[in-house]
Amino acid sequence: MSSQPASMRDVAHRAGVSLSTVSRVLRGAPGVAPDVRLRVQRAADELSYVVSRNASGLVTGRTGRVAVVVPFLQPWFFGVVLSGVSDALREADLDMLVYQVGETRAREGWTRALPLRRNSDAVVTVSMDLSEDECHRLDDVGVPVVLVGQCVPGRASVYIDDRAGAAGATRHLLNLGHTRIAYIGARREEWSSTSSRHRLEGYGAAMATAGLAPWSVGKATGHAGGELAMGELLSDQDPPTAVLAEFDDIAMGAHRILRRSGVRVPGSISLMGFDNHDAAAVLDLTTVDQAPYDTGLAAGRLTVGILDGKARTDTHVEMPTQIILRQSTAAPRGARGLST
Amino acid sequence: MSSQPASMRDVAHRAGVSLSTVSRVLRGAPGVAPDVRLRVQRAADELSYVVSRNASGLVTGRTGRVAVVVPFLQPWFFGVVLSGVSDALREADLDMLVYQVGETRAREGWTRALPLRRNSDAVVTVSMDLSEDECHRLDDVGVPVVLVGQCVPGRASVYIDDRAGAAGATRHLLNLGHTRIAYIGARREEWSSTSSRHRLEGYGAAMATAGLAPWSVGKATGHAGGELAMGELLSDQDPPTAVLAEFDDIAMGAHRILRRSGVRVPGSISLMGFDNHDAAAVLDLTTVDQAPYDTGLAAGRLTVGILDGKARTDTHVEMPTQIILRQSTAAPRGARGLST
Repeated sequence: MSSQPASMRDVAHRAGVSLSTVSRVLRGAPGVAPDVRLRVQRAADELSYVVSRNASGLVTGRTGRVAVVVPFLQPWFFGVVLSGVSDALREADLDMLVYQVGETRAREGWTRALPLRRNSDAVVTVSMDLSEDECHRLDDVGVPVVLVGQCVPGRASVYIDDRAGAAGATRHLLNLGHTRIAYIGARREEWSSTSSRHRLEGYGAAMATAGLAPWSVGKATGHAGGELAMGELLSDQDPPTAVLAEFDDIAMGAHRILRRSGVRVPGSISLMGFDNHDAAAVLDLTTVDQAPYDTGLAAGRLTVGILDGKARTDTHVEMPTQIILRQSTAAPRGARGLST
Repeated sequence: MSSQPASMRDVAHRAGVSLSTVSRVLRGAPGVAPDVRLRVQRAADELSYVVSRNASGLVTGRTGRVAVVVPFLQPWFFGVVLSGVSDALREADLDMLVYQVGETRAREGWTRALPLRRNSDAVVTVSMDLSEDECHRLDDVGVPVVLVGQCVPGRASVYIDDRAGAAGATRHLLNLGHTRIAYIGARREEWSSTSSRHRLEGYGAAMATAGLAPWSVGKATGHAGGELAMGELLSDQDPPTAVLAEFDDIAMGAHRILRRSGVRVPGSISLMGFDNHDAAAVLDLTTVDQAPYDTGLAAGRLTVGILDGKARTDTHVEMPTQIILRQSTAAPRGARGLST
């Protein structure tokens, strides 16, 4: 264990170059010959030298860090998005601070409770569904903000078209010949999510185009909500032949109830989710893929672009969704759709 | 949008107190009257003032950040651990930097590639299964290191007893009356995991105590490995009546093969996992819970304790595991075990 950390001067001495050359190489600046670059990197490696962000920040005014704000870290989705953001930031030699807002989200002033100011060069929010007021609060931090999972005019946003995704999913079920298609959505107490609203709208629009009335059930989110909603649908006078869930998590709860009740999927009821959750493949669940890793990567790169002055702060990036057909959806018995 | 961020002086002026009082309140130091503390906090809130870590770091020598190093961010497990670490660090007003080592893990010198030195006050590694040499490399960073998912003598470690967990799982299957119990493990090319080794040993020991020979199959990790291994077991001259998988992910792949092959679970084959993955409940999978959130919380609190000088740097925290009985395990047909 070395008690005295190596300085940039030590690296310059060992590599036999000037201090400014070391600085150029370590900042990744151009104009240094490849062999010199290699020599400096090797010397830095040998001395276990790493640039001190604090010291370099005082010179450049940059912290070398990007703050990523998520509501929760536990759901699968956020880990995958963070993985993409992390890879993009690493490419640019930026560090990633992660803030889990959690229950404080409901509290007034949570944006001020985060130590973002002068601790990060940019803020990325993931599925935070920020209000206009909250966006202004983040502006007060004084660094660029990139919104993931939310599309706000005039603000850097990376998002999917939830309406189109849900409408496509509904059309898949319609095309198979289903007409009794129920929708299970998440009902939240604390705040309403734009994505939730858009998915429900997409479902409703596709049903309307087919001349059908929407049939939606709102319960708590997650497995538990899916179980309750499926229980309600199975108790209907005339149960649906197909069910679309707002999230795969909800679809998984519904799947469990169907399995326990001995209702065959897709024999008796077709079931479709949205997300392409890690575990959706295990259940052979047909779903809508929204590529969270690619979304994270795109958000990270947009952030780097904005910091480098190469991207505008009102850039919108719409990520594609695609329907992943698995074995949980099929034509209803006696259908007159595509499959007869 | 304020163009000029508020300074500590502005806060002092607005609250009508001295600069040092503001400093005391914002550092959470004792000896300030409650009403004064409230006034300062309100003034800081109103001015959207947040302590600059860089500036305060130059005074205290602390960065106010803890670096958490994970191999990957995508698997469910890491998000849950990070959630616990994050909550513990928030309690102590510390920020969390996250480094995803990913593919660079296999490369020599990855510990030096991370900008840890002088960027963080401590390093937490999660399921990195560090070698002695890698531990020494991290020592070079010059800050305390806390190992999660790994127990190393003389080093701060938070871990579960993988041997005991796997032995308990095996005994559950033995007690049900199974004797043909196969084990599916993850075989890795890059580096061997201590946890993998311990789980296999726990299974082997419980089998030996029952006077049975171990029967283990090693494939790639994840769903794909579980599918391949289950295919192999189903092609055996005399297939097992029970299968224990090293991870729930592997068990899920095995479950899919059993479902597709029409083999009833637990009617024909009992299946058990290890982890209590998010999706294990959906599949009604019996498993071993290892409480990753609690592990993250314990690791975060141990880190804070070490930084505050209240915990030793060789503290070992063993987290409990518990067997979660669901509907994927039952007595074999014609069993003479507990259930007859």
